[in-house]
Amino acid sequence: MNKIESIKNERIKKWKKLHTKKGRTQANAFLIEGKHLVEEALNASWEIEAILYTEEMDFTFSGETISVTNAVIKELAMTETPQEVIAICKQHPVPERRNADGIFVLLDGVQDPGNVGTIIRTALAANASGIVLGEGTADLYNDKVVRSTQGGLFHIPIFRGDLNDWFDFFAEIKKPVYGTALKHAVPYTEVKTSQAFALVVGNEGVGVQEKWLERTTRNLYIPQNVKAESLNVAVATGILLYALKK
Amino acid sequence: MNKIESIKNERIKKWKKLHTKKGRTQANAFLIEGKHLVEEALNASWEIEAILYTEEMDFTFSGETISVTNAVIKELAMTETPQEVIAICKQHPVPERRNADGIFVLLDGVQDPGNVGTIIRTALAANASGIVLGEGTADLYNDKVVRSTQGGLFHIPIFRGDLNDWFDFFAEIKKPVYGTALKHAVPYTEVKTSQAFALVVGNEGVGVQEKWLERTTRNLYIPQNVKAESLNVAVATGILLYALKK
Repeated sequence: MNKIESIKNERIKKWKKLHTKKGRTQANAFLIEGKHLVEEALNASWEIEAILYTEEMDFTFSGETISVTNAVIKELAMTETPQEVIAICKQHPVPERRNADGIFVLLDGVQDPGNVGTIIRTALAANASGIVLGEGTADLYNDKVVRSTQGGLFHIPIFRGDLNDWFDFFAEIKKPVYGTALKHAVPYTEVKTSQAFALVVGNEGVGVQEKWLERTTRNLYIPQNVKAESLNVAVATGILLYALKK
Repeated sequence: MNKIESIKNERIKKWKKLHTKKGRTQANAFLIEGKHLVEEALNASWEIEAILYTEEMDFTFSGETISVTNAVIKELAMTETPQEVIAICKQHPVPERRNADGIFVLLDGVQDPGNVGTIIRTALAANASGIVLGEGTADLYNDKVVRSTQGGLFHIPIFRGDLNDWFDFFAEIKKPVYGTALKHAVPYTEVKTSQAFALVVGNEGVGVQEKWLERTTRNLYIPQNVKAESLNVAVATGILLYALKK
């Protein structure tokens, strides 16, 4: 059984670099904290490089397991009250766009990692076929994104890149695309439910960029009390996905 | 013009105690950060004890304003990148239950401050008449709750206390009460939309307590992909409020 007791261990130093996006990209890996997330990754057959634990583990894993001290877990953990398990997980390549069926959710510059993770969790729950993280959106493998997905990231194709390509693609296959906007938009209740559409949600401060709103089939808003300024973007995504899907 | 330049100033020390629930309760006050929230509090006529600022202010306020250093703002701030304005705001007494019309949202032990704040923001947007924070729910005046409401807390009655009284009250006035549960529940789409109901949402880990689920009119669930374990409680609240309200 492997054991690491010092935070100065070379491997621990190396893995600590996964706290930054640069480090994650270079190593093509990311950290996952907590028994629940590790189990989700294993169930979904994501490749795990090693599992570090302080307490005895009760799940099956054929790869490397390392018994570590609380200090080591704390060194790698990104939460205030660290879990007893941390795993080093390999990133997935950005999937190829094979299937255009069903519902897609496009994120235009959603910055808050908690929002991005919660949108992924919500899109999975709503049976979406895929999620596209556009430019300016928080990094998928950021620890708060990963945690907020509650494991959802392991179970749904998550694309990244220029939304422009996706607008071209949806235009080509004639999939309706709904933007979200406060002006020049119709209440979402005017749209018929369907099993195939794309929904574009935007940045917390400025919403979906004008250049995308010009390319949508329709732009929608959620009617609100005038004293409320807006809804949280993850909440709005949930309301719209469940209201629009058949 | 008042000026405070030292973090050792007695008033700064006093106000720093507002970071804890105990300190807030003793002083019957709380801190609000950022121009936007301070404006919302002023617009809604909440009583503000003093406004501290590092940059020139461009809003009208007849009370005490204090020019402070960045160090002082940083001392009082609860965010990593402090705003240029912080105000000391008086708490409101828990409102009396006068009006039973419309939609109420009851929180049973929702612990995460971000979730509580986002639920308040969402309930306001959905035109709810009131929110009840049951036992075990995060403190309304916690800084993360306040921030996540985006000012919503200033515009909607927020009750606190034993949910039991509310169940008695709703039974008396025959208002339908919908619980949220994964078992022994029906899809929310089976309920007709209406303008008057109460919705009970629960703790992030264990959901709504059994003792409340036994007292509801009906318990509802949101159909989900089997690979998703659940929805975030604020997202679920948004989906249900918008789906159930007329």
